[in-house]
Amino acid sequence: MLQPPPAQPGQREDEIDTPALILDLDAFEANLDRMAALLAPTGAKLRAHAKTHKSPVIAHLQMARGAVGQCVQKVAEAEILAWGGIPDILVSNEVVAPAKLARLAAIGRIARVAVCADDPAAIPAIEQAAAAAGLRLTVLVEIDPGAGRCGVAPGPEAVALARRIAASPHLRFGGLQAYHGSAQHKRTHAERAALIGAAAEGARRTVEQLRQQGIDCPIVGGGGTGSFLLEAHSGVYTEIQAGSYAFMDADYARNFNADGGHVDTFRHALFVLAGVMSAPRPGIAVLDAGHKAVAVDSGMPTIWGRPELRYVSASDEHGKLEAGAETTAPKLGEKLRLIPGHCDPTVDRHDWYVGVRGGRVECLWPVAARGAMS
Amino acid sequence: MLQPPPAQPGQREDEIDTPALILDLDAFEANLDRMAALLAPTGAKLRAHAKTHKSPVIAHLQMARGAVGQCVQKVAEAEILAWGGIPDILVSNEVVAPAKLARLAAIGRIARVAVCADDPAAIPAIEQAAAAAGLRLTVLVEIDPGAGRCGVAPGPEAVALARRIAASPHLRFGGLQAYHGSAQHKRTHAERAALIGAAAEGARRTVEQLRQQGIDCPIVGGGGTGSFLLEAHSGVYTEIQAGSYAFMDADYARNFNADGGHVDTFRHALFVLAGVMSAPRPGIAVLDAGHKAVAVDSGMPTIWGRPELRYVSASDEHGKLEAGAETTAPKLGEKLRLIPGHCDPTVDRHDWYVGVRGGRVECLWPVAARGAMS
Repeated sequence: MLQPPPAQPGQREDEIDTPALILDLDAFEANLDRMAALLAPTGAKLRAHAKTHKSPVIAHLQMARGAVGQCVQKVAEAEILAWGGIPDILVSNEVVAPAKLARLAAIGRIARVAVCADDPAAIPAIEQAAAAAGLRLTVLVEIDPGAGRCGVAPGPEAVALARRIAASPHLRFGGLQAYHGSAQHKRTHAERAALIGAAAEGARRTVEQLRQQGIDCPIVGGGGTGSFLLEAHSGVYTEIQAGSYAFMDADYARNFNADGGHVDTFRHALFVLAGVMSAPRPGIAVLDAGHKAVAVDSGMPTIWGRPELRYVSASDEHGKLEAGAETTAPKLGEKLRLIPGHCDPTVDRHDWYVGVRGGRVECLWPVAARGAMS
Repeated sequence: MLQPPPAQPGQREDEIDTPALILDLDAFEANLDRMAALLAPTGAKLRAHAKTHKSPVIAHLQMARGAVGQCVQKVAEAEILAWGGIPDILVSNEVVAPAKLARLAAIGRIARVAVCADDPAAIPAIEQAAAAAGLRLTVLVEIDPGAGRCGVAPGPEAVALARRIAASPHLRFGGLQAYHGSAQHKRTHAERAALIGAAAEGARRTVEQLRQQGIDCPIVGGGGTGSFLLEAHSGVYTEIQAGSYAFMDADYARNFNADGGHVDTFRHALFVLAGVMSAPRPGIAVLDAGHKAVAVDSGMPTIWGRPELRYVSASDEHGKLEAGAETTAPKLGEKLRLIPGHCDPTVDRHDWYVGVRGGRVECLWPVAARGAMS
């Protein structure tokens, strides 16, 4: 069942039922504007990652600020965006099941869609889906930029796969997918610069080898919130796939704070509002938000505006807070904003964004692709 | 949006779209029967925890085998069960917000409902909700059995709170909630026995002090899958609140395997079916199930029937598998059953159970209280 929204427009923030996913609209809009301003002087365009926000509403706000399209990881996410009017969608991931490819081709009638491949064995199923739907599907070759997850090696292996795609009457070669996931969370700029430098060099070499074989490479895509300025200024990457920048979670904040230079580039805009359900002993409070309300895979949430409080442990429906020795723990019924350690899976646990501004609920937006994992 | 089901009855298991939450019905039913058989000779009854399964269908199957009711952690879960015809529901957790208490009282018209308290300051709001709805609400006093989360201390503090409840014209004192969460995951039986022994002693002492003051204590509730036989045989606990036993996850399996005596008490019945979307290098396969499909807070999933494969890392939509040196990694498109590290939050990421038996899909059940966190 879809859960009812935890608030109504016009309510005060402290009237929102907990736990709730809240979006500080001023901070959120500032983040969208900031990304557009940062990318404007580079050659790169934003293709924002909808795996973070899962919302056609947010996708449209990014498009209005110059994004050329959206990325998704799943066909089910692509469907939600296409049905919500987004005209250009890249599945930045491999899709191999024929039933999924048929669904992707079906939305190819109402949106430009593209998908990635990293294996010649995956191509016939994509061709068949395109042929059955009577259209050409755009396929990008995913290269492994050094992250050790998916992707063929840059260079000859990637070129061979691109040739296979370009030679198909049912497919169109769309370019290279070269997202370096693990680089995003390296703590220092120097570490990220080294990794993205190597990734860009592999992509540059592959583009050059494609050109020598007469194959145009319209897109080189990659770059997340941790590294996007490196890709954008590389002269190689044409599209930036950041998603978390719109929300800023606690883990990315640790990145930015480790650097100095990056601090305050983006503001924390996404929170889980949690309520104190038990205050059993001095210095301890128990919140009503645990694993099912906030993702802890990249560390525990931090507490907005209350650095003296520590969220020390999560269980399924409880979060235990400790107050420092000189601090009073929050009282029964008090509500606090948690900054999630990791925004993407946190968003995916909720059915609604509650947009707040100036202490009031301004809007409700569905997390329309919540659970869209197929 | 509710996601469409990943399968249809009659399909073969290998036709199920991935990722999908699948339930091996033979193993699941054996687990339900086994729990009923284990509790029958003890004095204790099962009040199974619906925070694990979030399904009125499963709740009814437990009731049909002798469960006296269900536990939930959230009012929104209680609503889903009451609307699905479950007649007796305990919110085994504190509820302090007046709006939530009003909802709880509302379903008190169609089901017996009870809630916990661990603070005299929480009582007036519960009284007001009961008075406004024109009914008596049953309240259990949560005592801290040594877990250090919620709960008043056993003994005089608990007795004082029980007196406060029993004296109210709008409330009924229901008993003691004495669930020891952290004991469940201690690896050895000896550790669990020591902790539950202390918990039972605190509860016993409190029941005795209540009796001395003329206060009857109908329920002493607690016990999870890791420890329930200890509570059931304690002579103190009257209701067992296990949930995971129906599914058995990888973390509880590590408990049972550490002991010897417990092995095979329950069978693995719950899996995330995942597909190989990339096989980029020898010995490596990448699955289409990451953080958004399977919870890793209690460790990575293990692979059903393939102990030589290791799920080494999760990202949002990817799971990386490594095969041992003498093993062939799974091929592109191959489907594998993952045994989740932690079943409760894994279930909560999915909209549907796909029930399988003899290699075929037999039924689809909604995870009706998925996301019911308020």
